[in-house]
Amino acid sequence: MTESQERAIYERVRMGVDYYPEHWEETMWEEDAALMKKSGVALVRVGEFAWSRMEPREGEFDFGWLDRAIDLFGRYGIDVVIGTPTHTPPRWLTDKYPDVLPITPGGGVYQPGVRGHRCFNSRSLRKFGERVIDKLAERYAEHPAVIGWQTDNEFGMLDSQTPQAAEDFRDWAYRKYGTLENLNREWGTVVWSGEYSDWSELTPPLGGSPYQNPSFLLDFARFQWETVADFQAGQIAAIRRHCPDHFITHNFHSYPQRLDLYQVGADLDFASFDYYPNTSPDKAATSPYSGALSLDVTRGIKRKNFWIMEQLSGSPGAWMPMWRMPQPGYIRAYVWQAIARGADTVVHFRWRSAPIGAEQFWHGLIDHSNVPGRRLAEFAQTSSEAEHLAPLLEGTSPEAEVAVLMSHEQLEALRVQKQADSFDYYENLKTYHRVLTKLGIACDVIDWRQPLDGYRVVVAPHLYLLDDEVAERLSRFAADGGTLVTTARTGVKNMNNVCVMQPLPGLLADCAGVKVREYDPLGSDVVRLDDQDGEQFACSQWADILDPIEGSRTEVLARYGGTAFFAGEAAVTRHEFGRGETYYLGTHPEENYLRSLLLRIARERGVTHAESLPPGVQVSVRSGGSGAYLFVLNLGREPRRVKLSSDAYAEAARGEGLLSGKRHGGEIELEPYGVEIFRIK
Amino acid sequence: MTESQERAIYERVRMGVDYYPEHWEETMWEEDAALMKKSGVALVRVGEFAWSRMEPREGEFDFGWLDRAIDLFGRYGIDVVIGTPTHTPPRWLTDKYPDVLPITPGGGVYQPGVRGHRCFNSRSLRKFGERVIDKLAERYAEHPAVIGWQTDNEFGMLDSQTPQAAEDFRDWAYRKYGTLENLNREWGTVVWSGEYSDWSELTPPLGGSPYQNPSFLLDFARFQWETVADFQAGQIAAIRRHCPDHFITHNFHSYPQRLDLYQVGADLDFASFDYYPNTSPDKAATSPYSGALSLDVTRGIKRKNFWIMEQLSGSPGAWMPMWRMPQPGYIRAYVWQAIARGADTVVHFRWRSAPIGAEQFWHGLIDHSNVPGRRLAEFAQTSSEAEHLAPLLEGTSPEAEVAVLMSHEQLEALRVQKQADSFDYYENLKTYHRVLTKLGIACDVIDWRQPLDGYRVVVAPHLYLLDDEVAERLSRFAADGGTLVTTARTGVKNMNNVCVMQPLPGLLADCAGVKVREYDPLGSDVVRLDDQDGEQFACSQWADILDPIEGSRTEVLARYGGTAFFAGEAAVTRHEFGRGETYYLGTHPEENYLRSLLLRIARERGVTHAESLPPGVQVSVRSGGSGAYLFVLNLGREPRRVKLSSDAYAEAARGEGLLSGKRHGGEIELEPYGVEIFRIK
Amino acid sequence: MTESQERAIYERVRMGVDYYPEHWEETMWEEDAALMKKSGVALVRVGEFAWSRMEPREGEFDFGWLDRAIDLFGRYGIDVVIGTPTHTPPRWLTDKYPDVLPITPGGGVYQPGVRGHRCFNSRSLRKFGERVIDKLAERYAEHPAVIGWQTDNEFGMLDSQTPQAAEDFRDWAYRKYGTLENLNREWGTVVWSGEYSDWSELTPPLGGSPYQNPSFLLDFARFQWETVADFQAGQIAAIRRHCPDHFITHNFHSYPQRLDLYQVGADLDFASFDYYPNTSPDKAATSPYSGALSLDVTRGIKRKNFWIMEQLSGSPGAWMPMWRMPQPGYIRAYVWQAIARGADTVVHFRWRSAPIGAEQFWHGLIDHSNVPGRRLAEFAQTSSEAEHLAPLLEGTSPEAEVAVLMSHEQLEALRVQKQADSFDYYENLKTYHRVLTKLGIACDVIDWRQPLDGYRVVVAPHLYLLDDEVAERLSRFAADGGTLVTTARTGVKNMNNVCVMQPLPGLLADCAGVKVREYDPLGSDVVRLDDQDGEQFACSQWADILDPIEGSRTEVLARYGGTAFFAGEAAVTRHEFGRGETYYLGTHPEENYLRSLLLRIARERGVTHAESLPPGVQVSVRSGGSGAYLFVLNLGREPRRVKLSSDAYAEAARGEGLLSGKRHGGEIELEPYGVEIFRIK
Repeated sequence: MTESQERAIYERVRMGVDYYPEHWEETMWEEDAALMKKSGVALVRVGEFAWSRMEPREGEFDFGWLDRAIDLFGRYGIDVVIGTPTHTPPRWLTDKYPDVLPITPGGGVYQPGVRGHRCFNSRSLRKFGERVIDKLAERYAEHPAVIGWQTDNEFGMLDSQTPQAAEDFRDWAYRKYGTLENLNREWGTVVWSGEYSDWSELTPPLGGSPYQNPSFLLDFARFQWETVADFQAGQIAAIRRHCPDHFITHNFHSYPQRLDLYQVGADLDFASFDYYPNTSPDKAATSPYSGALSLDVTRGIKRKNFWIMEQLSGSPGAWMPMWRMPQPGYIRAYVWQAIARGADTVVHFRWRSAPIGAEQFWHGLIDHSNVPGRRLAEFAQTSSEAEHLAPLLEGTSPEAEVAVLMSHEQLEALRVQKQADSFDYYENLKTYHRVLTKLGIACDVIDWRQPLDGYRVVVAPHLYLLDDEVAERLSRFAADGGTLVTTARTGVKNMNNVCVMQPLPGLLADCAGVKVREYDPLGSDVVRLDDQDGEQFACSQWADILDPIEGSRTEVLARYGGTAFFAGEAAVTRHEFGRGETYYLGTHPEENYLRSLLLRIARERGVTHAESLPPGVQVSVRSGGSGAYLFVLNLGREPRRVKLSSDAYAEAARGEGLLSGKRHGGEIELEPYGVEIFRIK
Repeated sequence: MTESQERAIYERVRMGVDYYPEHWEETMWEEDAALMKKSGVALVRVGEFAWSRMEPREGEFDFGWLDRAIDLFGRYGIDVVIGTPTHTPPRWLTDKYPDVLPITPGGGVYQPGVRGHRCFNSRSLRKFGERVIDKLAERYAEHPAVIGWQTDNEFGMLDSQTPQAAEDFRDWAYRKYGTLENLNREWGTVVWSGEYSDWSELTPPLGGSPYQNPSFLLDFARFQWETVADFQAGQIAAIRRHCPDHFITHNFHSYPQRLDLYQVGADLDFASFDYYPNTSPDKAATSPYSGALSLDVTRGIKRKNFWIMEQLSGSPGAWMPMWRMPQPGYIRAYVWQAIARGADTVVHFRWRSAPIGAEQFWHGLIDHSNVPGRRLAEFAQTSSEAEHLAPLLEGTSPEAEVAVLMSHEQLEALRVQKQADSFDYYENLKTYHRVLTKLGIACDVIDWRQPLDGYRVVVAPHLYLLDDEVAERLSRFAADGGTLVTTARTGVKNMNNVCVMQPLPGLLADCAGVKVREYDPLGSDVVRLDDQDGEQFACSQWADILDPIEGSRTEVLARYGGTAFFAGEAAVTRHEFGRGETYYLGTHPEENYLRSLLLRIARERGVTHAESLPPGVQVSVRSGGSGAYLFVLNLGREPRRVKLSSDAYAEAARGEGLLSGKRHGGEIELEPYGVEIFRIK
Repeated sequence: MTESQERAIYERVRMGVDYYPEHWEETMWEEDAALMKKSGVALVRVGEFAWSRMEPREGEFDFGWLDRAIDLFGRYGIDVVIGTPTHTPPRWLTDKYPDVLPITPGGGVYQPGVRGHRCFNSRSLRKFGERVIDKLAERYAEHPAVIGWQTDNEFGMLDSQTPQAAEDFRDWAYRKYGTLENLNREWGTVVWSGEYSDWSELTPPLGGSPYQNPSFLLDFARFQWETVADFQAGQIAAIRRHCPDHFITHNFHSYPQRLDLYQVGADLDFASFDYYPNTSPDKAATSPYSGALSLDVTRGIKRKNFWIMEQLSGSPGAWMPMWRMPQPGYIRAYVWQAIARGADTVVHFRWRSAPIGAEQFWHGLIDHSNVPGRRLAEFAQTSSEAEHLAPLLEGTSPEAEVAVLMSHEQLEALRVQKQADSFDYYENLKTYHRVLTKLGIACDVIDWRQPLDGYRVVVAPHLYLLDDEVAERLSRFAADGGTLVTTARTGVKNMNNVCVMQPLPGLLADCAGVKVREYDPLGSDVVRLDDQDGEQFACSQWADILDPIEGSRTEVLARYGGTAFFAGEAAVTRHEFGRGETYYLGTHPEENYLRSLLLRIARERGVTHAESLPPGVQVSVRSGGSGAYLFVLNLGREPRRVKLSSDAYAEAARGEGLLSGKRHGGEIELEPYGVEIFRIK
């Protein structure tokens, strides 16, 4: 058995489309399949949202249409992934079992008519959902075309307030705290006479205001994370019972996602992402970078390669006005960006734009007219390229010397208590990631509780909640020779979302070698930041006034300037800690400062990077069994000349471009949305 | 019998006021009537909103006060129009029969306390409303002062969600579709498992989100249009039973009105409009043009002259802060604008500002102080002028060589699925109308299903929904020698709000001689547009990339320019079709381009126009039995000199001004809000 | 007995803190008390919000913890004020007696979980609230440390819609109007058929729209004012029954407060205020002046000195992002501003930031870390200064020659019917007050129904509602030699919120010597204003066109200019009336014009003022038994040199600074947030 044969089927680099056979006259299917085959479609996702066709009335199942569709794809050699249909309960179900419907934080019923009208706590939803999935799994377990499953669709938090949700939350809290005394103490409910005197008084946050007890709100989020994971576990059990060899994934979306991706992802074989990079010229400067982060976040869910389950194929538009149509090269470039950052299979949403229903203007590869056009041609070209390079890329993955820590607990805690105007956990994380990406530094974005072995640098923004376990892991990482980058609003709280009564950064103070004497929530106000060389930068959002701990090897790298009352005080420090070092940024500096700081670290720690990437140009490496490959992508609207001569990637770039077959001689000319791939010797 | 005698009483050019006798001490009435007479008031509207006085308790009617008021007006020779009082059900009714109250899309009861708290589906409202109208009609059928009726007040859509509304909607859908199978198929409910399995599942759009099945949403609007028309039909039947010779009208308002004006207007003798042109200096450049459109829309409801039932008399202000007070000349100028565009009787809202209730600051002609002032004097002057010119103007109407097509189905369909940022059906229609008005081109604005005989040019923006009937009528119009102007987003859908699977503009592609290869929803982004002479313009909102149909006589008039990926592609075309021609504008060009295009058409097709109108100056013609009259109106805040020498209206303008008695010698000097009227030989 | 001994305990100048013993481990209390003592804390407020600890279960009271806390403070010589806990009913109460919860204008239940979840009409709240207060009062009546009480917390209007509120409102209306006929007539409900035919139809304003009958809305506000006063009266009775010698106060907040401060304040011994001046640099120019107004408003509630019950101690932040941290000097300066304007005791909120609950980031004097820092040090310095000056300041009060009239009835009436864009009753009152403050003119801000004896000048903006009593008092004031300043929108309505049918300013026309011919609601539009010397200013919001009453001694001080149609008409007048004068400002002029007008009045009437105060610098005088003291405060972020040589305060300023011990020689140098105090000979 070769290594390739050992690899799971989902580790292949190939292209697919989302297809809804039930949206089209059956007479069109074969023509569609034939054109798919011709265009390089290797697999389709079907079934998602089709519950009312699978089970038109309670207990009456009809899979005949799906049999015929799957058989057809099988005949064309196109693999099939089936989506479980629980995102859209049919009307007979919600009418007869109204407990299926969520109750919104405002108190209203989340009505059918749109989608996502399903409360994860509903017993009826679980019962009927698992039954239809059981039927599906049983039926297609042995079908040669079917290779795997997607659970539900785009999980998210609903903050549902149904009586069942309330009861489940009480049970959850009882399991966690045991007694009301414990719960009242840990949550600090004594404030505002909020003490619970009976379990029955515990409800979801009625009214939905974020201005409630933050300990309670954070636990209600945790309860929901567990609820969704448990809901999915029921589906997974139903599938695995019949299809032990099929893979199971879920299509995450819309980051930052309040739902804890890591918890919901735990049971999956791999993660998937629905990728819709913004097509507006106004977003051309930022969208490729937030896209890069989304891809890295998705790869971090399972710390391995992933899928794109829905990739932009044309202008989106449904509940919002239509976006700009992707210009030539856009579709291809974003496919390669996804693959470069660890996507194996890329499935486009959708084959053809729907003529019916509320998503009519969420454009597919083919327009309503059914005349194949520019976008399908570009898809077909990209498919062909991917097919060509697949043997090289399979088994390769992005590898990183830098990790950025991501935490849904921080995200949620900082959402319910916004620290200062313009302070935003995920936006700040984006800034760090963008600066790394512009420096050509590959990084993993991983759950903050993951082991850190193998990294040279760990960037850990805003570890607002902290416990001994993480604090010790991070301290050990630095003491053992790593570079740890920490920031303001670290160590503020314990895991109950209660402030610690010790100097900040709390449990990380020793590791950081500083204490926060006091702070000023700058919000959108801007303060001057002076580095050691007297260069002036701007900072905002927050200002910790830092005191190096006496006797520590703490160096002040930047101080506040200007007219602030704390001008001259320490703002950014570096602490030599054990065999490593800890940086502490007491403020949110402008990007230029972060660039100079991270570049200094990269140089000092020998992290692979690229100093002269033009705007919009990204580089990534996938490596593994068959070799290592350098991706150079121009994700901008201007042509760019990329000179990698002085950088780590220079040698590869002198070789032959695997897409163009050209030798670039070190300077790569890329047209707008141009892509080139090189083999690294 | 002379022609004049044959004319209906409502075809007289005269002035009136809205009067609420119940708001005033009865001792004031006679003084009011006397001052009205002196000020030229020829008729009053009464009764609207007075249900609680007509029927203070269920079944106890009291018309004594109304008798005395109407008798009084009769004695002063002032005619009376009675408004039916159903817009404001009294409290005893809503308390005892709460089904009268609408339920809002958010699920709450539309409470009494404001107004318009009446669900058109309520059986109690119909029963009690028709009973009080029956009593009114019976009582005043023979009263010599009473000449006609206004139904309810300012109909609009409420999207009411009462159980009765739901039941009526189900019945409506049943009558339309016969079976759930048909309904599910035509609406495409399979998307998102939205298939109805039982009629009971069909409800109004709960939650009120526009992000629902668009076929369903459009039908729910149609259902409401029929509901309101039917509600009104009940009132009309009650009136006609007793008063077969009285006219019946309704006061429409607030365009664009989601309600289908044509459907609700069908049963009326003529249409009325409540005209409140904006008094803000900020709106001085646009308000006279949107006002002109409103008047043309109102005239188009019945394709004949109309009334103003409420005309601005002072600063409005009630649920919003007060507007600016109309400056001298403003009231007079807007009366003449209304008449110029086909208003016969103009009724001012209101005689005197109310000292009580929520509309205290919706100012009448007289202030609360009851000291007659500037505005009443201006009204009296205008009344006197109107009385003087009435014999000439009666029997005349605006006539137009150009029609603009208006469609409430497009309006609603494009509302629930906004195509692109800044794309707005009615705003775009406004732009076309404004350009025509600035060119002095008279146009009719008519329902898109009306016959087109007699027009030289038809402007048909955004016929997004299309059926064979209209497509054939338009094609025939062009083929038979007309000029048809069509635009992007035409022929996108069938009448079920489902996208057609054919190249755009769908059913009009042959007539337009182009096919849309692909499109880019520009939204607020701006793209260059180059005409044949190399002149550069801007366009936005949308970009169709056009391919002239092979072998067609299609000429490209403008191409996209700049850095768009579709630069150089065709944007605007002209197709010689049969004996006529079809223009297709694949984008929304800036006003300057539209002006040059429509001017070219006017010149080529010999459409009467005026090339050099200064900003804010409008010209209109009324013609008919007794002659033709040219109105020249300065609706701006600057004095203007109007030179019509080189235009079609030049000869008339050399004659004597009928208002001033002056001869202008071709150059008309108009002060701010100045007006002149000429006889056209 | 000396005068000082006669003074009530609450008339002492001293400093306190708000302390929540229940938020902290009991082991921390003593250390806290010790540090308080050391820092100059003379008293603490406790008990507020602690109902769930005082009565953990219905009828089970536990005051042991509070005994221990109060005993402890007693031992440290720290006085105690107890807050009644009714602002936060415990969960057992709201669960068992849900009538405690308000129903919001939108129809939802105001859920527990935040705070303020108590309907003032709830019988259960009154019963259980008065019972726990009775227990408290009984228990601590004789405790030597306890000196007084605070009722509830920060009363405000909730517009609660419970059935009990509706019933109480009906009773209230019945008591006021006796018959529905009267009510219908006085409210003018005939408009829109709103006549009540049965008392049961009368409800709170369901839906909460301000677009309802304004007479009804104003009365619903009055009903609420009475309700809150009555609710508080129940608490006061319970306290006084046991503690006849203790003082009772309430901590008002958030001006403009819709609640009528004067009505709710009537039963109190003195008023308190929660003072949180804005720390944002963006507000640095305006915040010290709106703060000054808030202090003057609070002093006006009882027309005597007051307390600050919550004074800003650090960055606030809870339901909003955190504000900027107060910079050095800020806390001290604002304490002195409060004292300068009549605060005796100043209590800081709070001792230490809470680590638990929703107000974690509403910072106290000490941070969560419990490391005493800069802010506590500044507090301690200020305490020490206050202790030092207390013997001089006690018994002194601000005295004013100018009164500004404030009216909650105007505030509410102008809220429900906003007159014009940018027209805002309280903002305009702020403008007048700010101009006076910048001129160094002390003023009282008093209820508009108060006697005016002793004032030289009365500024009475927007007396929109007017009755004979006030009109006569004001007329008499002017006729007897006073200077009365009146403005547009005066005398518009009677006290039922119904427009008067007489020329404006209605009942004040004779006194003002002008009649409003007509008006133009300018909103945000700006019009030129020309004074008698030809100097040009700007005005906005409103334009009354004034006619001096024939034969009156009325002089036109300013006329409208520019292109307005009323250019040249009178805008501002002065009427020699009896032995005094009345100014009428028909518009809202820019601040420069108001400054020149008020300066003219100050000079002519000999009102003490200071012509050359730099921006941000305020002067105040407290005088009384022991002397008079001049406070010079720099409430700005820039150092300022204050020259008082040519002004009334000059002599004092040449003396020794009581804070610095320095002699300034007439020119006082103040650093940012610097303060100096002088003895006036």
